[in-house]
Amino acid sequence: MEINMNQLTKIVIDTRGGDKGASAMVAGAAAALDKYPELGIVLVGDQQEIDTLCASLSMPSERLEILHAAEEITNHDSPAEALFQKQDSSMLKALQALSERKELFGLITTGNTGVLLAGAMRYLSGKNRVRPALAAVLPAQSGGFTCLVDTGATVDCTPPVLHHFARLGSDFMRDMYGLVSPKIGLLSNGAESSKGNKLVKETHVILAQDDSLCFVGNIEGNEALSGKCDVLVCDGFAGNQVLKVTEGTATRIITDIMKYAYKTGSGEIKTLASHLMSIYDIGSLGGGIILGVEKPVIKARGNAGPDAVVNTAGMLLNMSRNQAVFDAAQNHI
Amino acid sequence: MEINMNQLTKIVIDTRGGDKGASAMVAGAAAALDKYPELGIVLVGDQQEIDTLCASLSMPSERLEILHAAEEITNHDSPAEALFQKQDSSMLKALQALSERKELFGLITTGNTGVLLAGAMRYLSGKNRVRPALAAVLPAQSGGFTCLVDTGATVDCTPPVLHHFARLGSDFMRDMYGLVSPKIGLLSNGAESSKGNKLVKETHVILAQDDSLCFVGNIEGNEALSGKCDVLVCDGFAGNQVLKVTEGTATRIITDIMKYAYKTGSGEIKTLASHLMSIYDIGSLGGGIILGVEKPVIKARGNAGPDAVVNTAGMLLNMSRNQAVFDAAQNHI
Repeated sequence: MEINMNQLTKIVIDTRGGDKGASAMVAGAAAALDKYPELGIVLVGDQQEIDTLCASLSMPSERLEILHAAEEITNHDSPAEALFQKQDSSMLKALQALSERKELFGLITTGNTGVLLAGAMRYLSGKNRVRPALAAVLPAQSGGFTCLVDTGATVDCTPPVLHHFARLGSDFMRDMYGLVSPKIGLLSNGAESSKGNKLVKETHVILAQDDSLCFVGNIEGNEALSGKCDVLVCDGFAGNQVLKVTEGTATRIITDIMKYAYKTGSGEIKTLASHLMSIYDIGSLGGGIILGVEKPVIKARGNAGPDAVVNTAGMLLNMSRNQAVFDAAQNHI
Repeated sequence: MEINMNQLTKIVIDTRGGDKGASAMVAGAAAALDKYPELGIVLVGDQQEIDTLCASLSMPSERLEILHAAEEITNHDSPAEALFQKQDSSMLKALQALSERKELFGLITTGNTGVLLAGAMRYLSGKNRVRPALAAVLPAQSGGFTCLVDTGATVDCTPPVLHHFARLGSDFMRDMYGLVSPKIGLLSNGAESSKGNKLVKETHVILAQDDSLCFVGNIEGNEALSGKCDVLVCDGFAGNQVLKVTEGTATRIITDIMKYAYKTGSGEIKTLASHLMSIYDIGSLGGGIILGVEKPVIKARGNAGPDAVVNTAGMLLNMSRNQAVFDAAQNHI
């Protein structure tokens, strides 16, 4: 297969490890190639399975490459064991290719988060072997975006770790969204600087002293996605709650609206429910992004379907126009 | 003023310390007396102000008592200082009356949470001077209620403290809602027992070993209010996020729906928005309840209006029919 991908932004897609199997990932890849003419894709997984799936879709072969991997990382694999025993897995082969091949820009995977973070640290942390963060970029009420960091990579944090997250998030939002001075908020249980647990109070002092950051103070949970800050810093446990409670509440209300629509038979309300679903379906928004590594790695949800692949591929294309971010992120610590 | 309140459930209402002033509290008291004929109220605050406010409302004087307090606890007061220097404040006089007068059942206040917790511990903790918890009882998607404990009283917890919260919550839901064996969930960032921060992992082991509890395991944020558990145990920092993110997300979606209704001019959608507002207006649901003290104390939101006073008075009347709960809660630790 001869491929000329020099003019393309080439990304790697791990086809294994997701709930919906390789078929969803390959279908997503096909849709992304169709939507973005400047995109090239390397599919990593079982060659035979991918060949079969591709045969049933019309894929532009000049923008497609397949990399065979005999093994699959499952959700039962522990990071330490997987790194040593499953080097021929699609996730680790994808990370290795991303690390070794200069022309590859980023990676999308739906697989095991723990193994992914460990693998990203092994293959993509460069000289600085720091723990990466898993961020989520969510639509803010004000119309922009809020980068929530961390959403679950590091659940027990120290103040210097949260400080590191603030800098990673600040760099990311500056370079990715062109914000001159991203506003950094600290998730707390009260707006006053005296509010917070021990971790938050100590972090507040450190963030307030860092002149390189535009620290706007504590942000409460009800304003997490208000747009008062561009980066919301928190430990991975609290960030996971913000992400999942937002999703759970939105899903619940939209379900209520659907029931109400069926009860009343209102077409208008059904239309509204579909509209809200398209806004608040966090699962399809693009997934988490690993900050603090040399190239962008996107962790889509385990149950991600083709739409999520298209959306995350779109995110990577956006980032490729602002590649500086990941270099900049490396200049810290 | 001669009052015969022997057949009544008498509650204390602190009229000061809220954002909307004594007028909102007195108006709420009048509405509650109107709605509940079995209710008696002791209003605590500035006698002259309350007299003036009462004069403009038709209040049943035989079910009303006024207790003068010259001072007010503000949000700037620290618990330690307030306890010593503001003993003539409405909040502390209300707590003292509740402690000393057997016929008084419970208290509603909108004031400073920190001072309230310290005051409740001082006047109402009985022999056991344990840190009380601030719980919220929220409507679950399944149709019942979920008791979220803690929502902000103790933001730095140890596993034994979370274990204590689990028992307080279990007693409360058993006695208040008649659940034979309330299901206890532990808020975590994953359903598996291996998921969680250090605190949650250690607490998981303790809860699983306590045969007096019906522990159902970890619950993720998106299922916090699904009804999978009757009591959701978490540290006050995480619980505050669950509460406020739920509120923030609901408010945001309902605001979106209102905008959509005005854009489309749809009366049906306006009706829907009002319906959702009545369900998801957490502020009016009743406020937080302090668990682990001898009598029920409800902390309504600082911006609570008359509706919140009526709802919380209704909560107290419900509880008075199940008074055993607060004794039971004391039998632990």
